[in-house]
Amino acid sequence: MEIRIQKIIEGLFCLEDLREVYRQALPTGLSDEEETAFGAKLAELEGIVTDIRNRTGHPRVTRIAGSIELRTREEQAINIQPIQAAGRLTPEARKALTVYGDGYSVCDACRKPFRLDKITKPPSAQFHEDLARFLNMDQARVVPGARRGFQAVTSALVEKGDTVLLSSLGHYTEYIAVEQVHGAVREIPANDRAIVTADAAAERLEACVRETGRPPVLVMCDHFDYQNANEHEVRGIAKIAHQYDVPFLYNGAYTVGVMPVDGKALGADFVVGSGHKSMASPAPSGVLAANDEYADRVFKTTTLEGDLTGRRFGIKEVQMLGCTLMGGNLVAMMASFPTVQERVTRWDEEVKKSNFFIDRLLGIEGSACVSEYPRKHALSKVDTTGSFDTVAKTHKRKGYFLSDELTRRGIVGQFAGATRQWKLSTYGLSWRRVEYLADAFDEIAEKNGLTVGR
Amino acid sequence: MEIRIQKIIEGLFCLEDLREVYRQALPTGLSDEEETAFGAKLAELEGIVTDIRNRTGHPRVTRIAGSIELRTREEQAINIQPIQAAGRLTPEARKALTVYGDGYSVCDACRKPFRLDKITKPPSAQFHEDLARFLNMDQARVVPGARRGFQAVTSALVEKGDTVLLSSLGHYTEYIAVEQVHGAVREIPANDRAIVTADAAAERLEACVRETGRPPVLVMCDHFDYQNANEHEVRGIAKIAHQYDVPFLYNGAYTVGVMPVDGKALGADFVVGSGHKSMASPAPSGVLAANDEYADRVFKTTTLEGDLTGRRFGIKEVQMLGCTLMGGNLVAMMASFPTVQERVTRWDEEVKKSNFFIDRLLGIEGSACVSEYPRKHALSKVDTTGSFDTVAKTHKRKGYFLSDELTRRGIVGQFAGATRQWKLSTYGLSWRRVEYLADAFDEIAEKNGLTVGR
Repeated sequence: MEIRIQKIIEGLFCLEDLREVYRQALPTGLSDEEETAFGAKLAELEGIVTDIRNRTGHPRVTRIAGSIELRTREEQAINIQPIQAAGRLTPEARKALTVYGDGYSVCDACRKPFRLDKITKPPSAQFHEDLARFLNMDQARVVPGARRGFQAVTSALVEKGDTVLLSSLGHYTEYIAVEQVHGAVREIPANDRAIVTADAAAERLEACVRETGRPPVLVMCDHFDYQNANEHEVRGIAKIAHQYDVPFLYNGAYTVGVMPVDGKALGADFVVGSGHKSMASPAPSGVLAANDEYADRVFKTTTLEGDLTGRRFGIKEVQMLGCTLMGGNLVAMMASFPTVQERVTRWDEEVKKSNFFIDRLLGIEGSACVSEYPRKHALSKVDTTGSFDTVAKTHKRKGYFLSDELTRRGIVGQFAGATRQWKLSTYGLSWRRVEYLADAFDEIAEKNGLTVGR
Repeated sequence: MEIRIQKIIEGLFCLEDLREVYRQALPTGLSDEEETAFGAKLAELEGIVTDIRNRTGHPRVTRIAGSIELRTREEQAINIQPIQAAGRLTPEARKALTVYGDGYSVCDACRKPFRLDKITKPPSAQFHEDLARFLNMDQARVVPGARRGFQAVTSALVEKGDTVLLSSLGHYTEYIAVEQVHGAVREIPANDRAIVTADAAAERLEACVRETGRPPVLVMCDHFDYQNANEHEVRGIAKIAHQYDVPFLYNGAYTVGVMPVDGKALGADFVVGSGHKSMASPAPSGVLAANDEYADRVFKTTTLEGDLTGRRFGIKEVQMLGCTLMGGNLVAMMASFPTVQERVTRWDEEVKKSNFFIDRLLGIEGSACVSEYPRKHALSKVDTTGSFDTVAKTHKRKGYFLSDELTRRGIVGQFAGATRQWKLSTYGLSWRRVEYLADAFDEIAEKNGLTVGR
C-alpha cells in the first residue's frame, strides 16, 4: 500500500484517540494526566503528518479492535464491484459519520411530536421534504434499506393469499417482502431480450383476474434490474396496473440517486430507493416515497390502545415502526444529498463511460455483452467465455488469473475467479479511470494471446 | 468551544479530503494536478496540527454540506441524555465507521451461500457466534434496531387476531410490532411500585385463556423499562409463560451491552438488544437472539418459488429479509464488542455511580426519585417539582433556568425546560465526572436558594 494512504488512515485513527481524551474529560478541561496522554497522542499525530509529507514510515496499525482489517480498496484501487459503486460515500457523508456516528445522535433536539421526520436540527424535516420533491412524490420517509421499503408497502397492502405481480428479474428482497406477509407471487416474464414489457404485464394482469377472480393488490417492477441492469417498461407497466386500479411500486434501487427519477411522470404510487446502493450513503439506508393516494395507508399512524392503560402512541407510523434511521446513516444521507442531486444530472455522461468501456471490452475478440446494448446503465453483465475464459482453461491459476492480473493493476471488485459471465459497474469513475480500466483489460488480453482490435 | 476540539474535527475532515484525492486517482499514483491538490490539503492539515499544539486558530468549518451543524456535545460536555449514554461509540467503533462507512463495505468477500452472517472477512460469522454465546442463546442475528427484532418475532409468531401479552410499561415499538401484524395487545399491569411482577403476568395469562379461550402466542417484557428503568420480574414471567407453552421475548434494550445477560438462565426464548441504545453502536443496529426451539421459526429460510421461473432464493431468511446490516453499522458493532463484553462485568460500579448521583440529588430538599430506589440501573427518572421547579415558578427563564445553568457548567442532555419529572443516565461516566455532575446540581440549588444537605 502507498504509505501515504496508510498514514492518512493512521492519522484519522490518531485524531479519534485525541478526541476520546476530551470525551472522558471534565468540561472544565483536561487534567494533568489527560494532558500528558493528549500530548503523547499529538506527538504521534505529528509524526504521522511528517510521514505523509515525506512518504516515510511503516504501517503501524493494521487492525481495528484486534480482528478487523483495514479496508482501503477505494483509496488504493479502482473498484468495479457492481453493487458498491454508487454507494461509495462522498467526503461529506464521511464527515457526517465522523461527527454523527454516536447511536442516537440526531435526537438531541427531538421535540413533540417526537418523530424523526419532524426533527429540525439537524435538518431532517427539511431533508424529508427535499427528498419527496427530488423524486416528485408527495411524501417520503427514510428506511433501513430498500427492502424495508418493500416490506412497508407489502405489509400495508397485502393480506394473506393476495397476489402481487412482480418482475421475474426482480431483486430477491421484493419476493421475500411478499413471502413475509404470506402473499402469493406472480411473475411478469422477461422477453427474449431480458426486458420486462408492458405487454407482458398486461397479459399477466389479465391472467391473474381470469385465474384468481381478481387483480393483484400490487405490481412492482425494477426500473433497471440487478442482473443485467436492463431498462424495463416501468411507465407502461404502471399504466396497465392503473387500468386495473392496482398501485404500482417503482423499484429504483439502481436509479434513485444516480439518474433523474420523476415518480409522477413514471406513474409510480410508490418509489423505493437504496441509500447504500445508489445514494452514496451508509448501509442500511434507503427511501420510501408515496403519492397522496397511498401515503395514508403506508404511513398510517398507530391507532392501538393499551387494553388496561389506554396508552396511545401519538403519530408514530405503524409500517415505519416509529422512527427509522436515527443516527449517522440519516445524516450521511443528508450530507451526500447535494452531491446526489447534482450527479443525477450527469447521468448521460455515466452512460457514455459505460458504453466506452463495454465497446473496448467487445474489442477483445470473443467477448460479449449480456446486458442490452448499447448500455443505458453503468452496471453491466459481460460474457468473456470466448475470451478470458479460453485463457483460464489452461492457466495454472484457472479463472483467478484474471483477478490476479486486475489486482496487479489496481483494479478490484470483479468476482474473483469468474471468467465467463460476470458483472461490473463503471459508475462514478472519471474518464481517466475508465480509460485506464479499458487499457488494463486490453493489456491482459494481449499478454495472454487474445486478439484485441480497437 | 475549546479550540483543540474544533481543530480535531477539522483535522478529521481534512484527512477525509486528503483521502478523497486518492479515491479519485489512478492506482498508479497521483497526477501533477492531484499532487498539487494533495499538497495544499496537507499544508492545511499541518496548520491544523500546529493549532492543536499551540491552542491557536479560529473555527474554519462549522457546517457539513452547507446545512449540517457540527455535533461536539460528547467532546465538550457531560451528556446525561437518558437514551444516548450507552450508545456512544467507542473509539474503535468510530475507526470502524471511518474505514467501513461505504455502503456495501462488508460485501467484498461475500461468497456462497451469500449471507451476512456467513461472511468471514471482516469476521462477521465469528461475531454472530460470539454474540449468541455472549447472550447464552443458541443463535443470533444483527438487525437494524431492536424494533426490527420485535417485528421479526411478531411476524413469525403472531397471526391476525392473536393475542400478545406485554408489559404495560413496554416500549412503544413492542406495541407497534404487534399492531403491525394485526395482533391484539393485552397488558400486564405494573404494581403500585411500577414493577411488572410474575404474579401479575400469571393473572393476565389466566384471564387471557378465560376470555379468549386460549393463551397468548407470545409474552414480551422489558427487563428494565425505558420510563423508570425499574427492574421487572422477567425470570418469573418467563416461567409463567412456559407453563402455558408460550414463548417469552426478553427485551434487553436497556441491558444487553451494559450488564450481563444470560438468556438461558432468564428463560428467554428470544433476546432482543439495541446496538444504538446499549452496545456502543451506530443507529440503526441491534441483535435478535433465539433458542433452538424457536430459531427455526424466526430464522426460517425462504421457500418461495417464482411461479414462472421457478427462481428460489437460497438460504435467505424471510423475517430478516435476507441480509440486515450490510456496512459500517455491523463493523462498528463488531469493533465495540470487545469493550462491550468487558464493560458488562463492571455493571455494579455503574449502579454505584447511579446511586451516588441520585443520593446527592435527593440531598437537595424537595427532590425525589420516581424510579425504584435504591437504583439498579444507570437510567433514572427524578422528580424535582419540590426543588428546582419551585425556582422555575418565579424565574424569568422559567424551567429553562435549569438547562441554562447546566449548560453553563458543560452538562447537556437534560430535557430542556423540564423541572418536574425528567430522566437522566449516568452510564459510562467516570467517578470524577459523576462527582462533577452532583456538585453542579448542588451549586445550582444553592445559588437559587434551595436547601442542600449532604
